[in-house]
Amino acid sequence: MSFKILSIETAFPKKFEYLNKATLNNQKNSKINKIINATGINKRYISSPSEDIISLSVISAKKTLKNINKNKIGFIIFVTQTSPYKLPTAACIMQNELGLSENVFATDINLGCSGFVYSLKLAESLIDLYPDKDLGLIICSDTYTKYIKKNNRSCRPIFSDASASIVVKRTKEKYTGPFNFGSDGSGYKDLILHNKSDNIFMNGAKIAIFTLKKIPNFINNYINKERINLKKIKLIALHQASKYICDNIRKKLNINKKVFFNNYMEIGNTVSASIPILLKRADNKKLIKENDEIIACGFGVGLSWGITKIKWTKIQ
Amino acid sequence: MSFKILSIETAFPKKFEYLNKATLNNQKNSKINKIINATGINKRYISSPSEDIISLSVISAKKTLKNINKNKIGFIIFVTQTSPYKLPTAACIMQNELGLSENVFATDINLGCSGFVYSLKLAESLIDLYPDKDLGLIICSDTYTKYIKKNNRSCRPIFSDASASIVVKRTKEKYTGPFNFGSDGSGYKDLILHNKSDNIFMNGAKIAIFTLKKIPNFINNYINKERINLKKIKLIALHQASKYICDNIRKKLNINKKVFFNNYMEIGNTVSASIPILLKRADNKKLIKENDEIIACGFGVGLSWGITKIKWTKIQ
Repeated sequence: MSFKILSIETAFPKKFEYLNKATLNNQKNSKINKIINATGINKRYISSPSEDIISLSVISAKKTLKNINKNKIGFIIFVTQTSPYKLPTAACIMQNELGLSENVFATDINLGCSGFVYSLKLAESLIDLYPDKDLGLIICSDTYTKYIKKNNRSCRPIFSDASASIVVKRTKEKYTGPFNFGSDGSGYKDLILHNKSDNIFMNGAKIAIFTLKKIPNFINNYINKERINLKKIKLIALHQASKYICDNIRKKLNINKKVFFNNYMEIGNTVSASIPILLKRADNKKLIKENDEIIACGFGVGLSWGITKIKWTKIQ
Repeated sequence: MSFKILSIETAFPKKFEYLNKATLNNQKNSKINKIINATGINKRYISSPSEDIISLSVISAKKTLKNINKNKIGFIIFVTQTSPYKLPTAACIMQNELGLSENVFATDINLGCSGFVYSLKLAESLIDLYPDKDLGLIICSDTYTKYIKKNNRSCRPIFSDASASIVVKRTKEKYTGPFNFGSDGSGYKDLILHNKSDNIFMNGAKIAIFTLKKIPNFINNYINKERINLKKIKLIALHQASKYICDNIRKKLNINKKVFFNNYMEIGNTVSASIPILLKRADNKKLIKENDEIIACGFGVGLSWGITKIKWTKIQ
């Protein structure tokens, strides 16, 4: 048994910021231009005190569940690192907020920019849990900006808040996989938030070096090992880290430029929500259609990375 | 493909407390006796500022990995609600601390007292991830006492800190399952810790009512639905919530008293580590031996619950 993506919906905070003198802590114009040129990010979404991963996810999830029999949902996987609660599990709160059946497997997984790909692997096993429930709900939501102070020069120009909800449906045909994953905890201090801190620390240079050393080889090895026919790949959905990262990964891969589609410019780096938001936009723009093959690759905090192939289906 | 439990090891903080006048905030002797009679808990482990879920897990995990080829570990599932970090993922930190291969699926799952049973279901799918890696590592560690103030009368007599590490190995024969799970987010405020708080709130009465209303029926329904032959069950491993909870669940089930084994008395309620610690002690005491059938049931914060059958194997 496998599953296909049936529906993706997104939600963003009401407030957004353009990168300018005020939002970049009164840096000089020349410096601001340099930052925008490197990150490629113009606009970022900032959650207000009344918005959090729960409230944003209620919006995105209710949209995904609109035409769906909720009693068919057998699991909720909530990918987040910025829940307002240490306990309980945000996925349990969602069970009640969405009016889902009690007979549901609900858990949060703590992963960042790689989390969506990991959640797809877990969905593969959970889609079979209950014979009478052939749907599952994946939620990827983060609000990093709640932990980024105004003077945080490495994080403020990049991270953005968002939620993506994905409904998946059991199928006999395989739409997702093969998967590959990796972790390197030796870099755990390069992107970190202690519980007692309210300001994420990122060593941007080290994260960039890790990413450009690791990820292009990881993608190449996957393509070779799994004998991926690149002619069939219509989209490479990279985690939308920044222009610098996405451009340099692309340059290191010997792959047709046309299969890369980016949207960091208008939404920033939305952590775990980044890849599902990109897939939704690519579908909206008709860049991907039924039966197209996609490679999705997430990477970042942990350090952690993951890759899969997705066969696209018409989403609701 | 399925898996069996190959090894369980545990770790506790150096410091422990007996329940007495001083540790119960100078309550009267009659009140102290009443608390000890209800909880059944005499001794609780309290992590020091230099101990956390990472340091405790390094101890328990290194013991489980002692005679094991670490390159065969294909995944790390870290069940915790009390990581010192919002990010990164504790499982990624463990990859480096334990010297595991980079080619590993590492994630934390945020669940409490039900978490071990959930992690077994996820292990079932991940044990097949890499053909050349037939082992997986599950870590269940929590340090609730870091978020329990001296005057916290509902939590202080109950919760205790601990870590359990479990190595699982791929098998053709099925040793675990069938599984059943449930979530009810309507009770999420009854056991909660906001990020900005340092004191867990528990409405003990409501949690007890939920548990005694829900869990005995859940266990009975599982036994009936899965046609469990109770004569073959050698142990019912309940989450070690407290004497009051464990006794009352037992009383509501029409099952031979002898198959219940408890150890809350000498270690307290160790949240996600509770069931693996109980299994290890039952094995040490020779209460369970190879091929014995066990039912494990976790329940609590979320609210969340899960149940599975385990066929026991000789552990290292």
